[in-house]
Amino acid sequence: MRILQILTRKLSSTFSYRQLHSSSNPASFGIAFDIDGVLLRGSNPIGASPRALKRLYDHAGILKVPYVFLTNGGGVPESKRAKELGGLLDVNILPLQVIQGHTPFKQLMRRFENELVVAVGKGEPAEVMSEYGFKNVLSIDEYASCFDNIDPLAQYKKWTDKQDVNQNNKSKHIALSNDPCLQRVQAVFVVSDSVDWSRDIQVLCDILRTGGLPGKEIAHQPPLFFANDDLAYQALFPSERLGMGAFRIALESVFNAVHPAVLKYTSYGKPNPFVFNNAETVLMQVLQSCHNNHQVDGRKQHFKTLYMIGDNPSVDIKGARQAGIPWFSILTRTGVFKGKENHDDFPADLVVDTVEEAVDYILNKECIS
Amino acid sequence: MRILQILTRKLSSTFSYRQLHSSSNPASFGIAFDIDGVLLRGSNPIGASPRALKRLYDHAGILKVPYVFLTNGGGVPESKRAKELGGLLDVNILPLQVIQGHTPFKQLMRRFENELVVAVGKGEPAEVMSEYGFKNVLSIDEYASCFDNIDPLAQYKKWTDKQDVNQNNKSKHIALSNDPCLQRVQAVFVVSDSVDWSRDIQVLCDILRTGGLPGKEIAHQPPLFFANDDLAYQALFPSERLGMGAFRIALESVFNAVHPAVLKYTSYGKPNPFVFNNAETVLMQVLQSCHNNHQVDGRKQHFKTLYMIGDNPSVDIKGARQAGIPWFSILTRTGVFKGKENHDDFPADLVVDTVEEAVDYILNKECIS
Repeated sequence: MRILQILTRKLSSTFSYRQLHSSSNPASFGIAFDIDGVLLRGSNPIGASPRALKRLYDHAGILKVPYVFLTNGGGVPESKRAKELGGLLDVNILPLQVIQGHTPFKQLMRRFENELVVAVGKGEPAEVMSEYGFKNVLSIDEYASCFDNIDPLAQYKKWTDKQDVNQNNKSKHIALSNDPCLQRVQAVFVVSDSVDWSRDIQVLCDILRTGGLPGKEIAHQPPLFFANDDLAYQALFPSERLGMGAFRIALESVFNAVHPAVLKYTSYGKPNPFVFNNAETVLMQVLQSCHNNHQVDGRKQHFKTLYMIGDNPSVDIKGARQAGIPWFSILTRTGVFKGKENHDDFPADLVVDTVEEAVDYILNKECIS
Repeated sequence: MRILQILTRKLSSTFSYRQLHSSSNPASFGIAFDIDGVLLRGSNPIGASPRALKRLYDHAGILKVPYVFLTNGGGVPESKRAKELGGLLDVNILPLQVIQGHTPFKQLMRRFENELVVAVGKGEPAEVMSEYGFKNVLSIDEYASCFDNIDPLAQYKKWTDKQDVNQNNKSKHIALSNDPCLQRVQAVFVVSDSVDWSRDIQVLCDILRTGGLPGKEIAHQPPLFFANDDLAYQALFPSERLGMGAFRIALESVFNAVHPAVLKYTSYGKPNPFVFNNAETVLMQVLQSCHNNHQVDGRKQHFKTLYMIGDNPSVDIKGARQAGIPWFSILTRTGVFKGKENHDDFPADLVVDTVEEAVDYILNKECIS
């Protein structure tokens, strides 16, 4: 059985033998699930992933095992994503349980609360930032529409989506009364995958080269933040598709070719260790919510084991390994990784075929079934 | 007068004093005009550029000075572009006089005549290649439509243009009866500016990594050709817009990040010297057509001076300087170049404000007015 593929060397490197046999104390362990390539492929559940999640609830549908979704994806507010996932995976999910690539942007709200910031990406990037408390945010669709001829290829595009966005949402994200397009852009947040690379790379070069005033003189680059740096991910097409990391490489290489100073940026998302530390904090909050904030005191509690279940060795497994104790990494073969044995560069503590197999292993090990 | 800014040092480096005072022999000189930033900005004539061109025709509208349009732009067949330019500039233009970035692709027709090739870019890239004689060409819009889920962002795009292209043109460019999408792509031609960078970079990586069979195993890269390598160009927006060279940099940097071997490609267009040698050949054909192929024997004729009028020092002026005798470079201030004096890295033989001033200088020097 592949479950026996646990490499003792790997185990001893990440946590002690005692922890492997931790009791069934509800605070003793938690689970972080990657979504794409583990639970879902596109909008379709992978194998019986909904049944695997159901095992984390009791017969009355009450959560008995604290878990979160830890994804580099995003583009919609956590509250909306929780509803979507609940529908696709047929379980009741709290917004608290959804940790997306852009969730850490929330922590930058105080710094840019009333400044003009531009949000890039598919879905509802400006809505995401507004829910975090940013009061003066424009999507790049809305921002680009302020400048005539900024995209010389616009005449070849029929962006009915964008036109809708422009009409419907422009006012919502803007607290200030004067024209936001005359203000200096103070920061750019790439919330989700850019859809229109030619327009977005052009407009971002314009913003970043001029200190936030397209068409004006060269000036100091405003801060640039990416929700993740995934080069590629597994979607419905047989081979991997390019992700936000590929967009970052394209933007960076073009910017560096047209600008004297190299592009400065910050990327969040897995495998960044703070994402895993943050997930541990959130898992403790989920645990408390399971127990109505009475039976468990998060300040005194520590997880003995946290399981990261992912399909991407260089993102999920590398991240869990870097985070160290109490993280235990489980690699599935349902997404990016398709190898027979373990991954060479970022070997997981356990390799399984599917997420069901991973959950089965965890519940047996934690003496819950 | 700025015309007095001719730098003797520069002159002597490119041709002799005698040539400066060449006679009015119609074979003694010709002119190559860049279009964007010299004659047109977008679709609008710059200054009185139509009047400048009219001076090259006699009172009966017969061409008296051989000239060509030498542009790195493109996306439509030369015959169609000649009609468009004639309308915008109010003169009668022969298809022969239009030399676009992709015109040299014609010379690759024999090599790929019956092979499946993919044509990329705005406008009508597949029509361009078909007119050159390629018998099995698909636009990347048509090609991508063969593969479900090849573009994971497609659901966020409303490409009504593309859908039209797919329905209307697919059959026209395909001589072979079996499904072209099952054939191996033998070459990729970037005919004009890519509109949908995210889709095109994804699909080109798929084609180029797999030897022309997206979704299949890694294989040898098929040849890749670009019509030009312009990093940026002057359009209607105050600052320069990203061109095909920027797309090449983005594609190359992403490809090199996901593939073990570096991207191999060939770029045409100015400042490539063969473009100027080819322009000289075409100018001689134009001269012959002016004289009904009787009075002038191209095999015995040589131009004493060929004038390149452009706005881009690193493209037009660098190219003319590299081509050497008999080329004489004239830099206008109506486009990319906006300096007071000459350009530091690629100084022109003459710097003028407008194309009218350039034509005025040429006709005075050649004793025609």
